Amino acid sequence: MKISHETFGELKTYLAEKKEMVETALHRYFPEPEGLISDLTEAMRYSLFAGGKRLRPILCVAGAEAVGCPGEDVLPVACAMELIHTYSLIHDDLPLMDDDDFRRGKPTNHKVFGEAIALLAGDGLLTEAFSLMTSSHISPRIPHKALLRAIHLISRAAGHEGMVGGQTVDIQWEGRGANPEVVHFMHTHKTGALITASVASGAVMGGAGESQIQTLVSYGEKIGLAFQISDDILDIEGDSETMGKQTGADQGKGKTTYPAVLGLEESRKIQSDLVQTAIQDLQGFDRRAEPLRWIARYIIERKK
Amino acid sequence: MKISHETFGELKTYLAEKKEMVETALHRYFPEPEGLISDLTEAMRYSLFAGGKRLRPILCVAGAEAVGCPGEDVLPVACAMELIHTYSLIHDDLPLMDDDDFRRGKPTNHKVFGEAIALLAGDGLLTEAFSLMTSSHISPRIPHKALLRAIHLISRAAGHEGMVGGQTVDIQWEGRGANPEVVHFMHTHKTGALITASVASGAVMGGAGESQIQTLVSYGEKIGLAFQISDDILDIEGDSETMGKQTGADQGKGKTTYPAVLGLEESRKIQSDLVQTAIQDLQGFDRRAEPLRWIARYIIERKK
Repeated sequence: MKISHETFGELKTYLAEKKEMVETALHRYFPEPEGLISDLTEAMRYSLFAGGKRLRPILCVAGAEAVGCPGEDVLPVACAMELIHTYSLIHDDLPLMDDDDFRRGKPTNHKVFGEAIALLAGDGLLTEAFSLMTSSHISPRIPHKALLRAIHLISRAAGHEGMVGGQTVDIQWEGRGANPEVVHFMHTHKTGALITASVASGAVMGGAGESQIQTLVSYGEKIGLAFQISDDILDIEGDSETMGKQTGADQGKGKTTYPAVLGLEESRKIQSDLVQTAIQDLQGFDRRAEPLRWIARYIIERKK
Repeated sequence: MKISHETFGELKTYLAEKKEMVETALHRYFPEPEGLISDLTEAMRYSLFAGGKRLRPILCVAGAEAVGCPGEDVLPVACAMELIHTYSLIHDDLPLMDDDDFRRGKPTNHKVFGEAIALLAGDGLLTEAFSLMTSSHISPRIPHKALLRAIHLISRAAGHEGMVGGQTVDIQWEGRGANPEVVHFMHTHKTGALITASVASGAVMGGAGESQIQTLVSYGEKIGLAFQISDDILDIEGDSETMGKQTGADQGKGKTTYPAVLGLEESRKIQSDLVQTAIQDLQGFDRRAEPLRWIARYIIERKK
């Protein structure tokens, strides 16, 4: 299931265009650091503008567009997803957690700003996500009820029932051997939950009906898991320079990964099946859901 | 400005009654830990039920009641304030921050659960606060617009422009000598912001008018600062056993405090003036704001 040249061109254009939209918005929401807290805001900006793919904001925008809502209308919430994702990376990289020195080709936050400021920068980004989602940047076209529902599903996906729970299991099972049930829980929670919430929150704000929301949740769960499996595979097969971080690190740390539990071949098969059924899930959607189909395929093809 | 015996009795009854209401609600919102994340939820519960005064939830409830709204209606948001406060204590106590071993007479979270789980328990509590504020526990009598505004002012007060900013300055100025401007910034941000947001969010959800909100913000800022000054004073004069933590710790760490900058006597005078003007602020409010007046006086009298 290779991406055709034509599709790949459309996907590249789409991702570049939406990434630009997200970057511009993030810069608009984050003024330059100043005053007594300038180190803190500089640390927040350092990781936020360290060159991420902006996959979660793009999925949020694509989720809204799939149900006919202009992507611009959900931009603050889309950007909030990136703030939450960035905070999680800063905290995960801390010495008391994964103890990583490099991320996206740059020294990790605590390597530059120290552990205390890095912790606080993470706390600040997570909190600011909710401030942004309830700010005057929110389009008046988004009904309050839909916005509250979006915030609720995002916070549940980010918290102990979602991402934070997944990270807990990741840490606790490190070096304790592999187990398919645990690795599934970890991946669906640590990565899948926030990816699912990105698509679903965009759709909720965009006015999706209940069955559309359920379909997009199902799509999100599948591509979220597929994305984490590709992360695991890239950690084994990827190029350190392209990835911007040390590859092979998972194995060295005794991390619970899909390839470790089921082998590379089986992991690739599961990933491919997930992407295929995720695309099938979208059959009731029209052309406006095309970017969601492209993104599903991109997950298998990506090199970083 | 001693509290009269009669007022003290009313205050004690009020605080005990509202604390009970908050405890019951917190237990209702937090089911028993289970499954793969049971250590995480146990760590979250450990600090949440470690015997706090529940001042912030009580202020939120009192803020709503002052404008004629039943306290029960704002309980999930009131409890969310305690989740945010608790997360901040867990992160502050970490070795990479203040490195404290005891809190409220019990070993700190990381002493019991380890640093990684403590960090994640803090992250989980902060995130869950926003999940709770947008959950089905919210009374249908709270208008969506008011709820969104409450969430916005709480998140701003908790983030880099508020509490997280205050903690940053606290850490960065430790051992660097005293400065009235810095200590004022630190106290108004680290403690004052969340206390102010507690009262103000209660009032906003309770249907307060703009001028009432502004008055309660002003009241909150004053008692918030007075509360932190009393914390500083108690750290010098308090009894370790009553406080449940080591006293004299601020001085040992070279913390920037009011007494360190302005002396004990001047600090007490500022504190007393703040409480008096906070009570004056409330003159346009009727008997329903009486608890807010009691709480202001209690801040000077408290022993822990």
